[in-house]
Amino acid sequence: MADNPLYTIMQARSVVIAGASNNFMKMGSIQALNLLHGGFRGEVLFLHPTEKTVFDHPAYRTPAELPFVPEVALLTTPTRVTPGLLDGLGEHGVRHAVITTAGFREMGPEGARLEAELLEIAVRRGIRFVGPNCIGVLNATEGMNLTVVPYTDAPGHMGLISQSGTYVSQTMPYLRENGIRYSQAISVGNATSIDVVDCLDYLGDDPETAAIAMYIEGVQRGREFLAAATRVGRTKPLVALYVGGSSAGARSSQSHTGSLGSPDRLFDGVCAQAGILRASTVDEMFGWANALANMPLPRGRRMAILTHSGGPATSMADACERWGLEVPEFSPALQTRIRAFLEPTASAKNPVDLTFVMGQESFVDKIPEVLFASDEIDGVLVHGMMDTGFALEMHKVAGHMLGISREDFIKPMEFDLTHLLELPARYGKPLVASNFIREDHAAQTFRERGVPLFRTPEAAVKAMAALARAGEFRKRWPASD
Amino acid sequence: MADNPLYTIMQARSVVIAGASNNFMKMGSIQALNLLHGGFRGEVLFLHPTEKTVFDHPAYRTPAELPFVPEVALLTTPTRVTPGLLDGLGEHGVRHAVITTAGFREMGPEGARLEAELLEIAVRRGIRFVGPNCIGVLNATEGMNLTVVPYTDAPGHMGLISQSGTYVSQTMPYLRENGIRYSQAISVGNATSIDVVDCLDYLGDDPETAAIAMYIEGVQRGREFLAAATRVGRTKPLVALYVGGSSAGARSSQSHTGSLGSPDRLFDGVCAQAGILRASTVDEMFGWANALANMPLPRGRRMAILTHSGGPATSMADACERWGLEVPEFSPALQTRIRAFLEPTASAKNPVDLTFVMGQESFVDKIPEVLFASDEIDGVLVHGMMDTGFALEMHKVAGHMLGISREDFIKPMEFDLTHLLELPARYGKPLVASNFIREDHAAQTFRERGVPLFRTPEAAVKAMAALARAGEFRKRWPASD
Repeated sequence: MADNPLYTIMQARSVVIAGASNNFMKMGSIQALNLLHGGFRGEVLFLHPTEKTVFDHPAYRTPAELPFVPEVALLTTPTRVTPGLLDGLGEHGVRHAVITTAGFREMGPEGARLEAELLEIAVRRGIRFVGPNCIGVLNATEGMNLTVVPYTDAPGHMGLISQSGTYVSQTMPYLRENGIRYSQAISVGNATSIDVVDCLDYLGDDPETAAIAMYIEGVQRGREFLAAATRVGRTKPLVALYVGGSSAGARSSQSHTGSLGSPDRLFDGVCAQAGILRASTVDEMFGWANALANMPLPRGRRMAILTHSGGPATSMADACERWGLEVPEFSPALQTRIRAFLEPTASAKNPVDLTFVMGQESFVDKIPEVLFASDEIDGVLVHGMMDTGFALEMHKVAGHMLGISREDFIKPMEFDLTHLLELPARYGKPLVASNFIREDHAAQTFRERGVPLFRTPEAAVKAMAALARAGEFRKRWPASD
Repeated sequence: MADNPLYTIMQARSVVIAGASNNFMKMGSIQALNLLHGGFRGEVLFLHPTEKTVFDHPAYRTPAELPFVPEVALLTTPTRVTPGLLDGLGEHGVRHAVITTAGFREMGPEGARLEAELLEIAVRRGIRFVGPNCIGVLNATEGMNLTVVPYTDAPGHMGLISQSGTYVSQTMPYLRENGIRYSQAISVGNATSIDVVDCLDYLGDDPETAAIAMYIEGVQRGREFLAAATRVGRTKPLVALYVGGSSAGARSSQSHTGSLGSPDRLFDGVCAQAGILRASTVDEMFGWANALANMPLPRGRRMAILTHSGGPATSMADACERWGLEVPEFSPALQTRIRAFLEPTASAKNPVDLTFVMGQESFVDKIPEVLFASDEIDGVLVHGMMDTGFALEMHKVAGHMLGISREDFIKPMEFDLTHLLELPARYGKPLVASNFIREDHAAQTFRERGVPLFRTPEAAVKAMAALARAGEFRKRWPASD
């Protein structure tokens, strides 16, 4: 697939930006700042009709004046000048572009005419482009951010293909708060030249991408989409949020990206055939894809639940049954092994509920080891594995009375999670967690180390159910195939 | 209902705490710190076998030595000494208690015997108590916090009754982040003396509580519960998260609070009869109850969607249809009125999508006024009404280049939301919002002023659907009844 234009676009070593200026309140300027300050190691040039430099980088008046041919052009220019500019760039050798400019097909007949012109120019010049009417692309691994929102996290293993620019950009603070990390993200916009199928093929072969999330309003090349999903899905779990199936969704998507949706049932059929997990919310799309990108798939549906909170234990157990997972009562032998690490008030049946009193070692090391090693379970759900969060809350209100600094108060409480974090890979079983208190050392460690950490017990269970379904899809295809 | 013991407990003017010491790592000590630093204006005494003072407040060895009879006793003492201590307190006139001590019915036959003893003593002494095996109670309006986690927000209008202590305590940071506020919260634990029915009756009459959330593992007095819910539900919407209906949920709840669940279908029947909204997750329970506590109920199911993001617009429209709301295409006349405030690239059909370019006045004042005033819609959903959040993200990475302080950069961007915040009450229609960027002046204003602000478009729609169902329940009962 080396002819896929996304190789050049997503791994660009040089970018020319048209539409940025030294006025940092313009969309193109914001994209430029994100590229300049996101860790990009390639060269950045600007096209600008009057400025000599933009953010201290050289600016040129026309494509003819560029000192070399940049690999990628980013266009955030007024709609009417965009086709001509693309033509000029093509004339001077540029073959790849990202066009964030809007005002094309999604705006009706006149926009559709302009979009056809754009495509005609691209075909004539041998240019492939992402967009128009997109929000840009991000390669977190390369620090290349052409979107309008900074990406400040370390790179991760979840790829995103989105027909909504918002889900690539505005969601970045949301993802950061939830410990969800991109490998690469592509906003396809109107998908005039490069579409979801191209993105699937490309991310399917990206070594850093382990699972792929897709926000879809309508699929243009149905047969090719099914083929690409089936191919990629054999090694990388796919999650789709499809919103073009209802009549209100279809109407909205048409004025958004000019997409035509097909009925929900049809898309469900595609998912079943290709092994795509269908999410029903943005939360599920991102949460599941991130869990799939970071955890091994369970071999079955038997879950252990570990917590020191009875309510979340019961919520998790109830949610497991509702979403097709099992919470088997442990065998007497397994209960005996667990009980060795429990207070007398605690329960070892499954859920394992340590109750309020707890020792770090039991909760974090001993019991998890027993659970992961047991052949009675296929995955582990944990609620409330916090260390400093509770004390931080207390210190906020009573710190002045405790006579001890925040740091000295909380530092000794930090769990050593080294052993726990090794267990999923060692036993080939997933760990999925939830926690109400987010400002917490253990919670932060989970987020940094790729342990899926949800805000509620039920969301953790639903993600685990998605992992189990992905595991069942995987069994269809022998590993050697 | 003035004989309801919760009046005295929740409005206590004096509290004696047994089980706290100057060692702030003990559960009782943490509860004491929360009471002392949560704004409580009543008197606080301590019982302690050896200490003369606890956190600078007088401590007494026995109930006999107390200088006056405190209205409420908080017991966080070892299980075996708790019945004797309750007896001693009763002998010296105490008639109300909160017993957080665990180790009773939930622990099997020996615990059940101790719990029976506790109840026998209470009945003989004329004592009514919350617990045992609970996490305490909170009256945010009075600044009285007997739980283990600080409550730092302003008081709100959502009451909580919970058979899980975790959902009253650990969730406080979660609620704070989501702008969800308690009026009062009661962790009933084993509900030996005071149960869910007593709590419903009490909160039903509390003037600050406008909606009630309930976490239920099993109902003990079914008929009385139905009667209380039916009575209270006429004026205050009720939301229940019931987790005792599945076999795994029932097993877990038995070792948690010794509750016996009944099948899901039975509970569904109760909900239908009493007009209780049944939530399936903690997120829904809190999010819906808070929305119901702060917004008028819609008179119908026709929703307007307002945003500048096409993806969330489509997600909202799709979710509306999935969850039983309508997104009617606006009449030509209404579209014309809206289009007056839109850029040419924007859509006025419903969803109203302002696209990336936007003016504050259109988004925040003009269009909302037109939508709320229109007789074509019953409620307004908004996604992405942010002002400073985006700039804050930019300032983090490029602040040094912009040559302007964070404060000077973002301050001029703050929206004036005064007019918008008046619209729901003026037109008797709900406003429900979602936003991916939480660190934002407008988002913070929403949270502070009771506009339900969800993390995702779908969660906002689901809450609006709950409001619509609550509106339909309400129609069963004429206001004069």
